[in-house]
Amino acid sequence: MTHPVGVFSAALTPLNADLSPDHASFLTHCRYLLDEGCTGIAMLGTTGEANSFSAKERMALLDAVVSGGIAPDRLLPGTGVAAFTETVELTKHALSVGVTTVVMLPPFYYKDVSDDGVFAAYSEVIQRIGDSRLRVVLYHIPQFSAVPLGHDLIARLIAAYPNTVTGIKDSAGKIDNMTAMVGRFPGFSVLAGADPLLLPLLRAGGAGCITATSNLVARDLAFIAANFNNDALAAEVNAAQDRVVATRNRASQFAQIASLKAMTATRTGQSGWLRMRPPLLPLSPAELAQL
Amino acid sequence: MTHPVGVFSAALTPLNADLSPDHASFLTHCRYLLDEGCTGIAMLGTTGEANSFSAKERMALLDAVVSGGIAPDRLLPGTGVAAFTETVELTKHALSVGVTTVVMLPPFYYKDVSDDGVFAAYSEVIQRIGDSRLRVVLYHIPQFSAVPLGHDLIARLIAAYPNTVTGIKDSAGKIDNMTAMVGRFPGFSVLAGADPLLLPLLRAGGAGCITATSNLVARDLAFIAANFNNDALAAEVNAAQDRVVATRNRASQFAQIASLKAMTATRTGQSGWLRMRPPLLPLSPAELAQL
Repeated sequence: MTHPVGVFSAALTPLNADLSPDHASFLTHCRYLLDEGCTGIAMLGTTGEANSFSAKERMALLDAVVSGGIAPDRLLPGTGVAAFTETVELTKHALSVGVTTVVMLPPFYYKDVSDDGVFAAYSEVIQRIGDSRLRVVLYHIPQFSAVPLGHDLIARLIAAYPNTVTGIKDSAGKIDNMTAMVGRFPGFSVLAGADPLLLPLLRAGGAGCITATSNLVARDLAFIAANFNNDALAAEVNAAQDRVVATRNRASQFAQIASLKAMTATRTGQSGWLRMRPPLLPLSPAELAQL
Repeated sequence: MTHPVGVFSAALTPLNADLSPDHASFLTHCRYLLDEGCTGIAMLGTTGEANSFSAKERMALLDAVVSGGIAPDRLLPGTGVAAFTETVELTKHALSVGVTTVVMLPPFYYKDVSDDGVFAAYSEVIQRIGDSRLRVVLYHIPQFSAVPLGHDLIARLIAAYPNTVTGIKDSAGKIDNMTAMVGRFPGFSVLAGADPLLLPLLRAGGAGCITATSNLVARDLAFIAANFNNDALAAEVNAAQDRVVATRNRASQFAQIASLKAMTATRTGQSGWLRMRPPLLPLSPAELAQL
């Protein structure tokens, strides 16, 4: 893909008893998500607990998915970590297995860094990789990264790397920020990081979403993306949107990632889905019962 | 060391032109810091830009320092990263070269995590390493980690691992928080993360410091630590403290790490010390001139 368009799932990562990624269950989950209608899978993101895995663990999971038969052009792994040299390593590895689009956090340890510094970090990564196939989706999620990506910085990155910096995942949850980017950056893919915002963002010219609730409601999201501007299906689109919002609200009563994993454990009948990597923890028995 | 006591330098990391760590210059700097009177070197911390280096780069730098003849018991490398499995890998590597005391950040990507989650992360690391030689200095630096370590959490960690969790570096800059820990946790090493607080913390029963300005004023800090309770030398101690405060203030006019590197470039006559890893950047020419 050049500019990512569609519904991408921020896939959850199932864990073995020793808290290592469960490759087989993840592969099954990827197939399920594509069968449900996802355009692709944004594996190894915030929802996938990626920053709780080492570089080796991340590369091994991507290898397992590609070896398992998922087409590399359906995958958008997260590769942005605190050290730009490791971001380079993870991104080169993705390219080596045929994956060309990655979702890239800015370096997130140092805070209150300048736009010049964040620009320099992305520049180092893109220039050191030096691969014209690479497509980077920037990742704005200040509630976790604490390194927000402002519009002037994004404009500089697009101007410097127009064929590489092709999109952004905006997980800050504010539709106005997304629509402002749609207006300012024609052709740039603005992807909502929150499921309920897919519909309003598509209506405003956005490209789609990379979201967490998609682990459970991908079929509804895919239906919305395919039919949002079809007046004859407005009632069905609105009904799908209502189900998306209801599922997201249900998953947000308690810690969101743990809740989505618990709901996936129920869907699949596999209790291994309940496991979480510290510092995130599974829901308590009382929370599980209430969910 | 069992409980770290003394003046530890949060060593700066010199870089080659390709922004890789300059092993030879770093080794020279470590020897300088020990010659100036530092008890030890807290390499690969925030001041050392450690989280901008990959695990491989971190391990290679530690290998170079130990191979270069710095005694492992004078080293306290930072090993805490976002992924606990990588924290385990880095810490095991340190132990493998004879280093037993490490400074360990909590996992710092996810925010607003529970004390139970942070406790679980430290527990996984300590239990998976399973080495009775290990000594962990906790690291409270909420302005960067955004994961503060409260006293109840610290109490739980000390109770669970009394021979392992032996100290804390408090870089939040509040002396009251440090003295409260001195009072609550007898025998636990409370180390100031800000140079001007070494003297008041020692007077309140603290163990010492792990600080950045020590890259320039280690001799004064060592003098303070050796003589803070010697009334006959009160004037000299106060004069040393005044120099520490003045140097720190000078380094804080602009970005602190870049300023300390610029001042080290001046001291050594080696311009390579000016280099920084993105997202941090060197001082501008105007800032350099003013400094």
